[in-house]
Amino acid sequence: MTLRLGVIGTGAIGQEHIRRCSKVLQGAEVVAVSDINVEGARAAIAKLGLNAEVYADGHEVVKSGDVDALLVTSWDPTHEEFTLAAIAAGKPVFCEKPLAMSAEGCRRIVDAEIKFGKRLVQVGFMRPYDAGYVALKKVITAGEIGEPLMLHCAHRNPTVPENYTTDMAITNTLIHELDVLRWLTEDDYKSVQVVFPRTTSKAHAKLRDPQIVLFETHKGIRIDVEIFVNCAYGYDIQCEVVGETGIAKLPEPSSVLMRKEAKLSETILTDWKDRFIDAYDVELQAFINDATAGQLKGPSAWDGYAASVAADACIKAQNSGAIEPVELPTRPTFYDK
Amino acid sequence: MTLRLGVIGTGAIGQEHIRRCSKVLQGAEVVAVSDINVEGARAAIAKLGLNAEVYADGHEVVKSGDVDALLVTSWDPTHEEFTLAAIAAGKPVFCEKPLAMSAEGCRRIVDAEIKFGKRLVQVGFMRPYDAGYVALKKVITAGEIGEPLMLHCAHRNPTVPENYTTDMAITNTLIHELDVLRWLTEDDYKSVQVVFPRTTSKAHAKLRDPQIVLFETHKGIRIDVEIFVNCAYGYDIQCEVVGETGIAKLPEPSSVLMRKEAKLSETILTDWKDRFIDAYDVELQAFINDATAGQLKGPSAWDGYAASVAADACIKAQNSGAIEPVELPTRPTFYDK
Amino acid sequence: MTLRLGVIGTGAIGQEHIRRCSKVLQGAEVVAVSDINVEGARAAIAKLGLNAEVYADGHEVVKSGDVDALLVTSWDPTHEEFTLAAIAAGKPVFCEKPLAMSAEGCRRIVDAEIKFGKRLVQVGFMRPYDAGYVALKKVITAGEIGEPLMLHCAHRNPTVPENYTTDMAITNTLIHELDVLRWLTEDDYKSVQVVFPRTTSKAHAKLRDPQIVLFETHKGIRIDVEIFVNCAYGYDIQCEVVGETGIAKLPEPSSVLMRKEAKLSETILTDWKDRFIDAYDVELQAFINDATAGQLKGPSAWDGYAASVAADACIKAQNSGAIEPVELPTRPTFYDK
Amino acid sequence: MTLRLGVIGTGAIGQEHIRRCSKVLQGAEVVAVSDINVEGARAAIAKLGLNAEVYADGHEVVKSGDVDALLVTSWDPTHEEFTLAAIAAGKPVFCEKPLAMSAEGCRRIVDAEIKFGKRLVQVGFMRPYDAGYVALKKVITAGEIGEPLMLHCAHRNPTVPENYTTDMAITNTLIHELDVLRWLTEDDYKSVQVVFPRTTSKAHAKLRDPQIVLFETHKGIRIDVEIFVNCAYGYDIQCEVVGETGIAKLPEPSSVLMRKEAKLSETILTDWKDRFIDAYDVELQAFINDATAGQLKGPSAWDGYAASVAADACIKAQNSGAIEPVELPTRPTFYDK
Repeated sequence: MTLRLGVIGTGAIGQEHIRRCSKVLQGAEVVAVSDINVEGARAAIAKLGLNAEVYADGHEVVKSGDVDALLVTSWDPTHEEFTLAAIAAGKPVFCEKPLAMSAEGCRRIVDAEIKFGKRLVQVGFMRPYDAGYVALKKVITAGEIGEPLMLHCAHRNPTVPENYTTDMAITNTLIHELDVLRWLTEDDYKSVQVVFPRTTSKAHAKLRDPQIVLFETHKGIRIDVEIFVNCAYGYDIQCEVVGETGIAKLPEPSSVLMRKEAKLSETILTDWKDRFIDAYDVELQAFINDATAGQLKGPSAWDGYAASVAADACIKAQNSGAIEPVELPTRPTFYDK
Repeated sequence: MTLRLGVIGTGAIGQEHIRRCSKVLQGAEVVAVSDINVEGARAAIAKLGLNAEVYADGHEVVKSGDVDALLVTSWDPTHEEFTLAAIAAGKPVFCEKPLAMSAEGCRRIVDAEIKFGKRLVQVGFMRPYDAGYVALKKVITAGEIGEPLMLHCAHRNPTVPENYTTDMAITNTLIHELDVLRWLTEDDYKSVQVVFPRTTSKAHAKLRDPQIVLFETHKGIRIDVEIFVNCAYGYDIQCEVVGETGIAKLPEPSSVLMRKEAKLSETILTDWKDRFIDAYDVELQAFINDATAGQLKGPSAWDGYAASVAADACIKAQNSGAIEPVELPTRPTFYDK
Repeated sequence: MTLRLGVIGTGAIGQEHIRRCSKVLQGAEVVAVSDINVEGARAAIAKLGLNAEVYADGHEVVKSGDVDALLVTSWDPTHEEFTLAAIAAGKPVFCEKPLAMSAEGCRRIVDAEIKFGKRLVQVGFMRPYDAGYVALKKVITAGEIGEPLMLHCAHRNPTVPENYTTDMAITNTLIHELDVLRWLTEDDYKSVQVVFPRTTSKAHAKLRDPQIVLFETHKGIRIDVEIFVNCAYGYDIQCEVVGETGIAKLPEPSSVLMRKEAKLSETILTDWKDRFIDAYDVELQAFINDATAGQLKGPSAWDGYAASVAADACIKAQNSGAIEPVELPTRPTFYDK
Repeated sequence: MTLRLGVIGTGAIGQEHIRRCSKVLQGAEVVAVSDINVEGARAAIAKLGLNAEVYADGHEVVKSGDVDALLVTSWDPTHEEFTLAAIAAGKPVFCEKPLAMSAEGCRRIVDAEIKFGKRLVQVGFMRPYDAGYVALKKVITAGEIGEPLMLHCAHRNPTVPENYTTDMAITNTLIHELDVLRWLTEDDYKSVQVVFPRTTSKAHAKLRDPQIVLFETHKGIRIDVEIFVNCAYGYDIQCEVVGETGIAKLPEPSSVLMRKEAKLSETILTDWKDRFIDAYDVELQAFINDATAGQLKGPSAWDGYAASVAADACIKAQNSGAIEPVELPTRPTFYDK
């Protein structure tokens, strides 16, 4: 059985996902697409040699009788609207992050999904599908390091453009850790504090970079995440879990070991896509398989909501300099695994 | 367009490839299979929920009008016969190694293919599709270490069964290096010598293990390959290329870095499948794509022949203790790339 | 010229230093020792085959006309008294840490030294003499990573005895970082905060372990130090300096790389002595050379005072849970380098 | 008790050893020196502020009643003569390598020493005093990798001057491995073969570089040593011991780990002195201690002879291209340990 996909939004990430579902993954075909730029949508489809229906309005895609499941890759502010529409239509929907523009928006999706009575939403957090994080979680779950006590993490980009503001370190960058660390620890944030080291001279004038975000979880795990988006040297994701009896560290990406010019070296990636491109394939294949099987298992609307609530607390902590509570309600049993 | 595959031989590797082409890769479907054990073939198909025709005779698969291309995964001594049949039928064929039981057999396939006038054969050497070897070759080709002068390699297995004999270190184990090192260096072997260190007490009584195989290539590159199939500690493939200005080393498989019990450690694999499973996917996807496009580009019948000629010289060198020539004829222009 | 040393206190560390100065280093001889346990002192001297005068009272050692310089390795509460006596006698003194039992005590030594008009005191902080830290500082000073912005550190012991209390994580463990990080960054602490992760089940009932200590320096560098004294797996000192253009990390101790039992591993030390034993030699040789040359250059009384002021703030922060200021007065020009 | 040293030859290495014995090590003083360039000798002594007698003739140093033991660091062709003179005088002698200009010369020293009836000679092979090799041997001796079966080694220099000839790869470069690998394996060479890869374009016109030297030992261990003296990238010494149950590898020199410019890197040394400088200290301290105790334990005249016999076979193998026997007589029980 082939899952017939409708894709809303044919910008860069939309086109990537269309290619992925059509040319790389199994079990799906893209039968309908939409974009506010209809000509762009048409061109995207043509470029890939696909035979999909092209609509101007995403709601037409949701409603189309040919469409079994949706990918929402449109302009961020429209994510909530199309996800809610998919729920209303009873169709599984993969929504790229952010799920909504606010925690309240995420909550509306959670409520709609619970009311519908079945999981229909997967949020586009791909790190739980990264082979490195999967291996790291396996080690932890197997008890190889005992109970986790601390996590030392870093999220570093070589550089960011002028329009990147201090709060985007949370909403665009840390957002990945906000999700994957909940998944890794199977725990929720209790409070957060943000401290600012001296700012790098490589950052543009208005950006405070780097930042360190400090969490306490409900189980008492302490997490520090260094966010450094003008670190100059590379795209570098670090995650070290300190347990009662040992420490496990996220693998470095595989690289040829060189001896050259008085250096023993490995390459550090500079583009995030090279780091996580494989995880996108795994993530969407999982969505296709789970949607076909009628039971979504990936990052849920609740996970999207939890990340959004945590992000709001982080931004508050950026501004207050104080330890801010992360007030996430108890998870509805609906989302128990 | 979907490539309709016929699979001859539904043993372990056959079933793996059927699953791969049906459930993982794109652009192909398995429409016919055969095995001398017809019931086994039927069960294999049923287990995967496939709807393929089942034949007792592989030649029926070759001839079937529904079949566009063949996978030969039958009993080794039948590889040559079915590959020749596929060529006679003008159909692309992916033949698992060994291509034939002798260099002469490989040569017959080469001759038949040349006579047919178009490349139809890909041999199942998967290492050129391994991400690590691809990265290593990229570094060499880019000139990052200058001209290659020496290669230091090792092929280690934790253990082998009682029926593994000294010559199988060449035909079953080294055969992978025989192919991939030609591909890596774009060079051919000129001579070979085999030396035997003291034998490990972990080997069974009749097996000389480890062995060291020493090659000289036509360009003058010196290659040493340690073959150690009862090394006890893991499945470990090493390849270090020493060039005029630097050294490049095959990446270790990615692994969680652990600090535990007074050790800073990474995991070494113990099963060759874990090491090269991804390469099988890439290899067969390449065959599917290339066969569909009408132009095979992977390891050719000539490569199978060259490996077989080299293997014969290695076995001669095992027995003589002398430096033996590797007498490979000049490559026909037919196989120029 | 040979520097004639008097050693006050012949316990474990005293005996180690006597052996070091007599049997390993150049330019010194131990001519007088004292201990409240005179027999023990006599035995220590005899065991090493030395011919030193043995006194019951350390002040006799200080005053002895045969003694050019002092090593104070007595019971901690007597350090201040003997160091002050050495200053009064105008003799160079190497005092093991702590310099005094309180910041006020350290200050009294600073004041006495300034009044005397010449540096006479070296405190026994040995990390600035460790080859790894020296290499790390060289990289920073050479500008190879740009301006330092953050330090991520860890101080881990496999286990501690029952009498180790929560505050000793500062006074006995962190004290080394308090000194060496000032030396490394050439900066002083401005404030400190301590957070407590969930406590490991491996700690005894009354000890809060691990702890994370967070500093801000006057230049705005943010430092986090994980202190984990029941980490089980080894004695492990980590220090990573994140600069504007790169990151430099303290070398791991050199170790044979092993491939064994499906692990690629290096040994982690379990005893702090193995980690820093070489640094002790370098440290005391430097003291001998500098005392002989008439100009001490190692960790000063001011450094001892600064570490003590910082330790007090850390303990206050342990108890308050708040961000506490580190109120170190401006360094007297006397201590300019 | 202080060992009074006479040093014959005050060139570069002689001056280094004089400084070492006078300013770094314990238990010795340099009381007499000689050099054919008497003014040079005088200047060397003066520069170090020493008060040693200066002679024109090394035999005066040997005979001096003030001299307890000798260091021979003179012109290579005079080593044998002065070492024999020291034996005749019954004085312990540390002779820099080579012990003599031929195996026969070494044999004469062995015979003289045996006739004298007590070990008086230590040859200047310093690698057995290198902390890395010591750690490697400890792992092997402890049985951690089972019986050694193979050694893979490399000796690489960044570059050599125009006067370096092909045979010097044996006598000046491999000579260190010839000694240390005997010590490491506690075994002797049975045969040797030399193969020449294509020559690097970085070598001068008459030098065949790199070379690979292949040994079989009496126990059946196979050893390959790559000698590459124009490897361009650094001074790099590799030694990997493959045993029945695991592999142990000589530690890389300790280095700050850097993340910079898209590379995760460590520094490779470029000067052999930086690699082995510490071993010189340990080596000479051992000689001083052992000579003082009246029982030499370091590399013996027999070890010098064995290395010389092996070197001769290597050079024969360079020229013949054949497998050449290494014909070392049975070790006299005099040299049993």
